[in-house]
Amino acid sequence: MNSLPAALPAILLSQTQLQENIGFVARAMANFGLTELRLINPQCGAPNERASATASGADEILRNAKIYNDYAEAVADIQHLYACTARLRDMEKPVFSPEEAAGDIMNNSVEQSAFLFGAERSGLENEEILFAKAIIRIPVNPAFSSLNLGQSVLLCAYEYFRRYQPNANQEAIDHKEKKSPAPVGEVIDFYEHLENELQAAGFFKPPEKKPAMIRNLRNIFSRVALNEQEVRMLRGVVRSLAEK
Amino acid sequence: MNSLPAALPAILLSQTQLQENIGFVARAMANFGLTELRLINPQCGAPNERASATASGADEILRNAKIYNDYAEAVADIQHLYACTARLRDMEKPVFSPEEAAGDIMNNSVEQSAFLFGAERSGLENEEILFAKAIIRIPVNPAFSSLNLGQSVLLCAYEYFRRYQPNANQEAIDHKEKKSPAPVGEVIDFYEHLENELQAAGFFKPPEKKPAMIRNLRNIFSRVALNEQEVRMLRGVVRSLAEK
Repeated sequence: MNSLPAALPAILLSQTQLQENIGFVARAMANFGLTELRLINPQCGAPNERASATASGADEILRNAKIYNDYAEAVADIQHLYACTARLRDMEKPVFSPEEAAGDIMNNSVEQSAFLFGAERSGLENEEILFAKAIIRIPVNPAFSSLNLGQSVLLCAYEYFRRYQPNANQEAIDHKEKKSPAPVGEVIDFYEHLENELQAAGFFKPPEKKPAMIRNLRNIFSRVALNEQEVRMLRGVVRSLAEK
Repeated sequence: MNSLPAALPAILLSQTQLQENIGFVARAMANFGLTELRLINPQCGAPNERASATASGADEILRNAKIYNDYAEAVADIQHLYACTARLRDMEKPVFSPEEAAGDIMNNSVEQSAFLFGAERSGLENEEILFAKAIIRIPVNPAFSSLNLGQSVLLCAYEYFRRYQPNANQEAIDHKEKKSPAPVGEVIDFYEHLENELQAAGFFKPPEKKPAMIRNLRNIFSRVALNEQEVRMLRGVVRSLAEK
């Protein structure tokens, strides 16, 4: 048992196209007690009065929203990243319902988690999903499956809120004796280290296959939730083999 | 067990003020497989192109919407009526969460049920709630509790859909061509390959820590459920780095 407060999951929106949707997202977050909004390369720019109109009073979330130009920077400190996508990918990742994701977050409640959502029209790119621990798929009518951004955030936040009990004695948080996952930024540093060494060793053959090879390699480690000690160990492995 | 098909719950909107909200409701219904929309004295009139714009393709629901001038007529054939309201009433009625309401509907699945929602600004009147079997209250952040009409319908429909098609997400998982994990023997071969190369590279220092280091290293990869292709790839990585 420990007394650390739960870290509320952040909402990450990548390349959002419409101000109105940022407002709807802020409103949905406020409804379910979430506060941290990160905007990655918002195509519609920083939140303005059009976002404020649909936020229906959740302006504080808009004002405090952090804007990132760099995807890797936006996810750098996240320990449990969940990518919300309707399309099934050719990627080896667990697929969670919003309910399962909420349960997973509660199991790791003092660590930093985040829900990641893509652009309205195109959704998340494969490179963005790569660093996610799991994919979230909202169960919908297959004949009418387009959920808008605000609705998707609403359902994920709702499922989290239903489990999250701000009242400490309501649901005791049992933080297992378990090392917490390394932030994504450190894991990316490891990937780059490994890939540079492999490049130098002539591993990426033929060259046109390099992007796919990198993707497959990164996907292995993204699934593990490596802790910091493990990241250091793997970097030691790469260094050791490369210097041999 | 009985063989009658389940009767899908209807959505009843009373005195709706904004066309846009009727459209959002239709869209949410379509997302979760509901089809029957009843409008009781819609203040904004019958659905028009403004409703259609926010329905995002759920026009069939709008076209088939039935309009009632008389509340009693609109609820006449409903057997299980659930009134969605944020305000607690001075009324002796059970209060359900959307999840509990969905469970109750499923327990009475061949009978006609309906979710009833009031006007955007004022909500349901006490006389409208009177005929309801139960009140539905959506759990929200008390500091920011205003859910809009479309969102309220979305959450109720979502909870129903999850029970009506409990395996919706499971199917998605089954559809995914998931590669099965490599047999443990192959993974062990990879470990030994890696460890031999690391031994040759002088990685295990000091020697008495070698068993613990090997354990930690193996523990990383054991958690991933590597598939055969990934095992081959990792062996390629080790070979490539070691031969550099």
